[in-house]
Amino acid sequence: MKQPNLATEIDMFGRITIALEEIEACREFVALIPEVRTNMVFAQPHAKTPDEVMAIDGRITIINSMPQASGRFRFGASSHMARLIIELMKTDPSVRAGIDFANPAGFSDWLTDYCTQHGWVSAMIDRRTEPAQIMIAEGSSMQWKAAEAVRTSGGRVPNIICDAGGMGKEPVCIIVGKEPIGIARDVCGIARDYAQSLK
Amino acid sequence: MKQPNLATEIDMFGRITIALEEIEACREFVALIPEVRTNMVFAQPHAKTPDEVMAIDGRITIINSMPQASGRFRFGASSHMARLIIELMKTDPSVRAGIDFANPAGFSDWLTDYCTQHGWVSAMIDRRTEPAQIMIAEGSSMQWKAAEAVRTSGGRVPNIICDAGGMGKEPVCIIVGKEPIGIARDVCGIARDYAQSLK
Amino acid sequence: MKQPNLATEIDMFGRITIALEEIEACREFVALIPEVRTNMVFAQPHAKTPDEVMAIDGRITIINSMPQASGRFRFGASSHMARLIIELMKTDPSVRAGIDFANPAGFSDWLTDYCTQHGWVSAMIDRRTEPAQIMIAEGSSMQWKAAEAVRTSGGRVPNIICDAGGMGKEPVCIIVGKEPIGIARDVCGIARDYAQSLK
Amino acid sequence: MKQPNLATEIDMFGRITIALEEIEACREFVALIPEVRTNMVFAQPHAKTPDEVMAIDGRITIINSMPQASGRFRFGASSHMARLIIELMKTDPSVRAGIDFANPAGFSDWLTDYCTQHGWVSAMIDRRTEPAQIMIAEGSSMQWKAAEAVRTSGGRVPNIICDAGGMGKEPVCIIVGKEPIGIARDVCGIARDYAQSLK
Repeated sequence: MKQPNLATEIDMFGRITIALEEIEACREFVALIPEVRTNMVFAQPHAKTPDEVMAIDGRITIINSMPQASGRFRFGASSHMARLIIELMKTDPSVRAGIDFANPAGFSDWLTDYCTQHGWVSAMIDRRTEPAQIMIAEGSSMQWKAAEAVRTSGGRVPNIICDAGGMGKEPVCIIVGKEPIGIARDVCGIARDYAQSLK
Repeated sequence: MKQPNLATEIDMFGRITIALEEIEACREFVALIPEVRTNMVFAQPHAKTPDEVMAIDGRITIINSMPQASGRFRFGASSHMARLIIELMKTDPSVRAGIDFANPAGFSDWLTDYCTQHGWVSAMIDRRTEPAQIMIAEGSSMQWKAAEAVRTSGGRVPNIICDAGGMGKEPVCIIVGKEPIGIARDVCGIARDYAQSLK
Repeated sequence: MKQPNLATEIDMFGRITIALEEIEACREFVALIPEVRTNMVFAQPHAKTPDEVMAIDGRITIINSMPQASGRFRFGASSHMARLIIELMKTDPSVRAGIDFANPAGFSDWLTDYCTQHGWVSAMIDRRTEPAQIMIAEGSSMQWKAAEAVRTSGGRVPNIICDAGGMGKEPVCIIVGKEPIGIARDVCGIARDYAQSLK
Repeated sequence: MKQPNLATEIDMFGRITIALEEIEACREFVALIPEVRTNMVFAQPHAKTPDEVMAIDGRITIINSMPQASGRFRFGASSHMARLIIELMKTDPSVRAGIDFANPAGFSDWLTDYCTQHGWVSAMIDRRTEPAQIMIAEGSSMQWKAAEAVRTSGGRVPNIICDAGGMGKEPVCIIVGKEPIGIARDVCGIARDYAQSLK
């Protein structure tokens, strides 16, 4: 594991703390926390392993009907999400942050429209097309998912990636970006507008 | 919601606290915490609604590589698990506690043997046989699951219920019993013996 | 350390949890949390050492302007308060629980009246009369304080003991009783009535 | 209250998080956590009120025999410590961070030597010389303490300020500096060397 320099570490802890405050203050986000819970990841520049990716130990859960981090930020606290970001960074090294959220029935159509309105690129992945030999190789699922997302987005990293779930796999979406404050604000915007749309 | 009397409330908070200490001290249980996280529920005698079932707010997650409760115990902190217990109580009112855990590939065969050795009744539910109209009716899934568990166990509540997951649903198991300390010790025993079996 | 039997442990964890909920829900208690923070102790029957006394790890502090426990309940988490209870139990073994709180300027006169109205015995200790050789012997201060409290209460354990502080020592009060739920409710009653009295 | 700009807020949250990690990892610091608990403050540039000073909600306490923050960082979470820093900033606006710690019997002589060895300026304040009318005016105690510290340090802000306590006041020290990471490392160095000195 490469140790970040102090300036990078200060920037990373500062940004992820403020991003978490955004999410914890957003009551509507509760409806978009999946059963597997939400995590937020923030990779060091040029991160190669999950140890170089900061995430929330224990993920973000729901306590007293509000989003709340279970533990603290820690390098190495995520594996799946961290690997997905690392894969995406191979295409675009500036994409260092991600937050995952639920993809309930009917949501992805609404979200596709929302992305169009905001000028965001979204990729809808169908895990049923994932080759069986990939599913069983530890870690290669995220490699496949990242490649699919980039492929369906014309060779670039999209803003949002959704999958429809699969056998034993809950459908989830992930929003990615350069740093966590911006995407935290964006995902709270999604949660508030989606809540409005259901009224 | 029926308010428990003070003696019942003392007994419930006391037992669930000690049960949680067992789980939080069991390093091997980490491997059996599913992606959807573990919860522990403890119903009031004759509970009819999730408000009468105590559970851990935010579920039990993994922090610093150990099991750890995200929040506190609270009546009403669980919906799925609470409803499952309430359904099972219709068959056997003495079964008031439950803890869910992961069902990774290959685990359920091992667990079936383990149950046989311990003289426990286990029920393996195949959610693919769950009628579609049930899946979409909020709450009726647990009703169906409880009925299936009792049916395949010859009319009684089994000690352990496992399902194989389904589209978008992670496979999980649940251990049930009269009160949480006993099943917490049992599930930690399962976790330790399963860890041994993998060596 | 004597390990409590399971029934005693259930009763203790259950009662102290419910007592803590009372305190954490009492906004007015914030004004009675001393700079040294509040602890709540609950001794096993016939406890002889702090290891046999349950208390809150890290004490009760103020978070978001409300009382909140810093950590969990744990045997051995208190030393001063635990020793005071152990000393008082030598006079009356039924007195197993205690909660300490602030003694701000002007408060003890108000509290003396309050105790009289409620038929409670209160003891006001003047630490300036504490012999110097006792102050420096680790642990003997609590022995002296307990003895003073019993002496000034006519040979019995009072309901409330206050001291006026001393050089380097913040003035504090402590309410004691058979178990923590009752005294938690009493101390919240004190906090609410004292807040009213200041209006 | 003046809202900090985003860059300042990122820098402040980042630095105070890393500083807290230093302290929470320092076992020896437990012996220097006073009964009133430790706080760490970090003021915005040109802060004028406690609302513009970041601090730990609920202070740093001792859990499982290690230093641990009770709550999160929050602007406005400290009053005494925040006011002391604000007063010191009137003399030297670059001094924006502070951490308080215990001043047990015999410690201040050792610390004076330690400061001399490290080329630090230390100020020993005698609160017995604090005029009575100041003690009772809310907030003016910190004004007096800051002025005394600057006066006895020849007109500049010292690195460390200790007071000997007083009636009802625990003796404490405070280390101050430009930002919290440096003083967190320094205070952990003090704690480790002091622990060595007692062996």
